Amino acid sequence: MALHILITNDDGYQAPGLRALAEALTEVGRVVVVAPDRERSGGGHAITAHKPLRVDPVDIGPGIEGYRVNGSPADCVKLGIDALLERAPDLVFSGINAGANLGTDILYSGTVSGAVEGAIYGVPSAALSLVRGEEGEPENYSEAAAFAVRLARLLMERGLPEGILLNVNVPAPRAEGPGNGVRITRLGVRRYRDVFHRRTDPRGKAYYWLAGRAVDLDQGPDTDASAVREGYISVTPIHFDLTHHEMIQTLKGWDWSFLLSPA
Amino acid sequence: MALHILITNDDGYQAPGLRALAEALTEVGRVVVVAPDRERSGGGHAITAHKPLRVDPVDIGPGIEGYRVNGSPADCVKLGIDALLERAPDLVFSGINAGANLGTDILYSGTVSGAVEGAIYGVPSAALSLVRGEEGEPENYSEAAAFAVRLARLLMERGLPEGILLNVNVPAPRAEGPGNGVRITRLGVRRYRDVFHRRTDPRGKAYYWLAGRAVDLDQGPDTDASAVREGYISVTPIHFDLTHHEMIQTLKGWDWSFLLSPA
Repeated sequence: MALHILITNDDGYQAPGLRALAEALTEVGRVVVVAPDRERSGGGHAITAHKPLRVDPVDIGPGIEGYRVNGSPADCVKLGIDALLERAPDLVFSGINAGANLGTDILYSGTVSGAVEGAIYGVPSAALSLVRGEEGEPENYSEAAAFAVRLARLLMERGLPEGILLNVNVPAPRAEGPGNGVRITRLGVRRYRDVFHRRTDPRGKAYYWLAGRAVDLDQGPDTDASAVREGYISVTPIHFDLTHHEMIQTLKGWDWSFLLSPA
Repeated sequence: MALHILITNDDGYQAPGLRALAEALTEVGRVVVVAPDRERSGGGHAITAHKPLRVDPVDIGPGIEGYRVNGSPADCVKLGIDALLERAPDLVFSGINAGANLGTDILYSGTVSGAVEGAIYGVPSAALSLVRGEEGEPENYSEAAAFAVRLARLLMERGLPEGILLNVNVPAPRAEGPGNGVRITRLGVRRYRDVFHRRTDPRGKAYYWLAGRAVDLDQGPDTDASAVREGYISVTPIHFDLTHHEMIQTLKGWDWSFLLSPA
């Protein structure tokens, strides 16, 4: 069975992680890449409504159909499914991102938003990220790409319930140690300390750089951050129904009657 | 008790909905506005890491401390709490947005992302949106602003559990009909039909406009979309733990053993 796989990312169509993923997945089926024309990291779940989107064919590698778009990962997936592909893909994969997407941070992640968009269309989807290794160490996507191939096969065998997608983080390759297993995890809670650096420009005016180091407030062994720290591939099931269902009953008990009288 | 309220939005610091909200809330406490310098709609939960953020004082109205920032609503809340305010605010309100933020669409909403950012910092937070009325009808934010004042008081009385925030949609003001009550709702599912318009530029090259009309796939009376359609103020408790906890057990039952043998 030839799968039909749509790939996007948020590092842009030239990123080595995207190319490694696309190349590896040609083993499993037909691969179409629709990716941003430049890096979009930190762009969250943006969509582009205020300017026209341009689509240009690009060379991603042998046997891969490639397009670059002047938009976000979510735009790319929307365009791919609605305008470029003749039928809905069997899978949407987003990545492989250069750097982790863990815990609360996935709210800001363009990589994850690409996969969420796939899931909104009802297509089994996954976001894939490679945790950065030591400073200066070259990124090696081969393990993560090999995992993506196996995951694609597993997803076609098992499927995913409507509205659920997978967020995958592969730890940085290590020379020593055992082969990495998988740990099924939940999202941890990340906060940032010392978030802004305040500086002064040559004209004496202040400006701020977003900085800060990640602190995992939630050290549970079942969190995604713990898993990758301990050398496991983290697989987290996520969904996009942000409703907090239990809180509905609580809120119904509040006194909203002020609305019946003049403020 | 003088509350300390941080306000942001995604329509920019000049938007009338922001000004109506800020002005109304001066009745309840000290109001600080930190808002984007221009419209950021559709920007999702973006953060700005690739360029410095500039902060300029702006006049929002009497008794209101105002700043504009060349960043997203999430940037504004981060900057406000981490760099501009001397202590954490008691409330973060985002809005009042010109137009609804309902169902799946909140994933793309800058308005909601401003309130989510407040909740990430542990501050009781709400996103407020005014549903658009008939074409050409001027937007009247007074009812929504009056509701925000009452909601601020209710939130200070009741608090919100860590990690939960409120997404509020106020229906378009109607001349006839009863005063609007509140309905506590869940997020519905919105999809778009006919998403892209394909056009050809003067040089014969194709481009695409994001378009499409919203279709509420989920017509349950307890959804946010149903509530505002029937003239109620919709209040939805949301959270930002995207983990699908029930699916964790299912995934643990899948066969991941392929990782132990060479691919």
